Amino acid sequence: MAVNLSAPTAAALHPVPGVRIGVTEAGIRKANRKDLTVFLLDEGASVGGVFTKNRFCAAPVQVCREHLAHGDIRAMLINTGNANAGTGEDGMVRARATCIALARHLNLAPEQVLPFSTGVIMEPLPADRIEAGLPAALADAQPGHWLRAAEGIMTTDTVAKAFSRQVTIGGVTVTVTGISKGAGMIRPNMATMLGFLATDARIDGSLLQELAFELAEGSFNRVTVDGDTSTNDSFIVVATNRAKHAPITAIDSPEGRVLKQAMLEVSRLLAHAIVRDGEGATKFITVRVEGGQTAAECRQVAYAIAHSPLVKTAFFASDPNLGRILAAVGYAGIADLDPAGIDLYLDDVHVAKGGGRNPAYREEDGQRVMKQSEITVRVALGRGTAADQVWTCDFSHEYVTINADYRS
Amino acid sequence: MAVNLSAPTAAALHPVPGVRIGVTEAGIRKANRKDLTVFLLDEGASVGGVFTKNRFCAAPVQVCREHLAHGDIRAMLINTGNANAGTGEDGMVRARATCIALARHLNLAPEQVLPFSTGVIMEPLPADRIEAGLPAALADAQPGHWLRAAEGIMTTDTVAKAFSRQVTIGGVTVTVTGISKGAGMIRPNMATMLGFLATDARIDGSLLQELAFELAEGSFNRVTVDGDTSTNDSFIVVATNRAKHAPITAIDSPEGRVLKQAMLEVSRLLAHAIVRDGEGATKFITVRVEGGQTAAECRQVAYAIAHSPLVKTAFFASDPNLGRILAAVGYAGIADLDPAGIDLYLDDVHVAKGGGRNPAYREEDGQRVMKQSEITVRVALGRGTAADQVWTCDFSHEYVTINADYRS
Repeated sequence: MAVNLSAPTAAALHPVPGVRIGVTEAGIRKANRKDLTVFLLDEGASVGGVFTKNRFCAAPVQVCREHLAHGDIRAMLINTGNANAGTGEDGMVRARATCIALARHLNLAPEQVLPFSTGVIMEPLPADRIEAGLPAALADAQPGHWLRAAEGIMTTDTVAKAFSRQVTIGGVTVTVTGISKGAGMIRPNMATMLGFLATDARIDGSLLQELAFELAEGSFNRVTVDGDTSTNDSFIVVATNRAKHAPITAIDSPEGRVLKQAMLEVSRLLAHAIVRDGEGATKFITVRVEGGQTAAECRQVAYAIAHSPLVKTAFFASDPNLGRILAAVGYAGIADLDPAGIDLYLDDVHVAKGGGRNPAYREEDGQRVMKQSEITVRVALGRGTAADQVWTCDFSHEYVTINADYRS
Repeated sequence: MAVNLSAPTAAALHPVPGVRIGVTEAGIRKANRKDLTVFLLDEGASVGGVFTKNRFCAAPVQVCREHLAHGDIRAMLINTGNANAGTGEDGMVRARATCIALARHLNLAPEQVLPFSTGVIMEPLPADRIEAGLPAALADAQPGHWLRAAEGIMTTDTVAKAFSRQVTIGGVTVTVTGISKGAGMIRPNMATMLGFLATDARIDGSLLQELAFELAEGSFNRVTVDGDTSTNDSFIVVATNRAKHAPITAIDSPEGRVLKQAMLEVSRLLAHAIVRDGEGATKFITVRVEGGQTAAECRQVAYAIAHSPLVKTAFFASDPNLGRILAAVGYAGIADLDPAGIDLYLDDVHVAKGGGRNPAYREEDGQRVMKQSEITVRVALGRGTAADQVWTCDFSHEYVTINADYRS
């Protein structure tokens, strides 16, 4: 059961002019399951990408990086059921073969196709089934298929993830629509498992690439489910340049800020959706750390809290066992941290003051907040003015069940 | 159910001349439970200690450090049910009060008492109940009470942990006996939750302190259950100097090596016992990483594997979903790691070769090893000659149950 997250309706997702999407069942791992998605981009689209920092990055991630360097991307090909990771040179050959096959159908060069895979690691990609599924996926291609795409890239997700916004730039309506997937192996380090965002705004490739990094930093790079950074994390931002406003020349211009704000909002909703649908999640938790010397040390403390199995199981139990949070702050690795300067809040409840229990704190107040489905943990380090935050979920029996049974 | 670990018999635990132990039920948190233990050391004992690096270290840890600096320790006082951590200045006052009370009974200075607490964090220590329990604990003091002590310091432990060895030094029989406790919040960073080791060997305080560090590095500092470093980790080594051999003048002398070997063996058994009794553990896993440039980077990779919830749940399920191990190697943070140089073994089974699936690997071989209760994961990084290892357990439903219910 995802936390306060329901599937979008197709009507809520604005098509992005210049993008068509087709989805099919290619039987990659299981029958009767949408598992192959193609994105077709009209000529003139800008594309930026941010990828996993896992050294064991998957073959498709390596191919994506190569092809993005060429520019002029016209298609994306996404399969579920197999991650094509830990597959060595053979995995590279298979990833390239799928690009070649799609390029042939579309009269493109293979370098104009970006491949993405998600699913089980260290098993050979069934490239033949992907190739066999391409005609059906292409026949399905429509601008209005964003919901189908969100469904087509799901693995252990329980809810399809897609959001859409429209803003006005230079008097022109501009659309931002995106999808994401992921529920486990989530501690993105440059991006999430898979996230795709498209807009018809006019912005060139290098600026869009810069924007992609900023968006990832404000969204996917601040969520964690289990601390496991995937081999396949990819976040792709497409601008089809079809809107009639004047080209955006800087992110920090009035028009750039409007676009960035809309894209950041959709990126955050997509990233939050991954946490809300985190494997076994029953609660959505914001961990905000402030009063640090640097944003990096605030983040370090926030991740220590967000990754602690003891903290996460206490949230699952709605147990205000808040000493576990202080313990995590203490082992986060800030060598000169003074415990006597630290305050801890649970939503509006002031739990710890000057490193010890707040004398005014009453267990029933902590209990009240712990029972909520959305909780903010706020830690004030009392040593500076920097702040940062991460989003995570609790740790339940269901997480163990899902991950003990995933391949069965 | 602890993994291949059963409770020791009192007869298997050799008393250490110069050490007496008393245990009682002081009703600190729950009734009818041994929760207060005193160690009485004869005059002339050397004592060394290693403590948590958690910045939120508990009040008793701070008091221990102070008192150890004075030297001439003659008693130790251990309570369960309350960790006296995250309790600020009030916690310090209460920890000191218990030392003063015990010192008064024994005609000692308060600085000659070391206090230890383990249990719930951020609740006031009931010092009055501890003081009220002291007469009964002192009346119980006997050299043969090591098993009672092992039972007296248990919290979520399911099995008492105590081991004993005898060796000959200079023709004289020397005893090494120790106890430990801990099952969750286990990722010692200098020591375990609580570990006490005593010998009647003759060795002075500064040499014993050096030895304590070396023992911790080879045992307690290489185990992890959930990656949470406790606020109360303490590892204490006592030498009563009662044996009649000539004093040991260097750890690296023939006599020093015999003593260190015996003490390391008991330390490792105690540290392994904590993993075998790890909350919800069904498997005991050795993660060995070799072929690194430094031992530190091998350790970093080993901990990434040992802390991955995905790896740990796969072990619980006996599922050879070994790509999860490669993913953890990839995100361990070795920036220039070349995946193509990496081999992975599960016991004798060669799973991955040169970063990809070993063509000779058969799923049924992986399955066979995964079903065992003791498993060695071996990763060869192929970039040097250094190696290191850590010990951990799997991650089961029971872990969530225990930690969601701990305070109820």
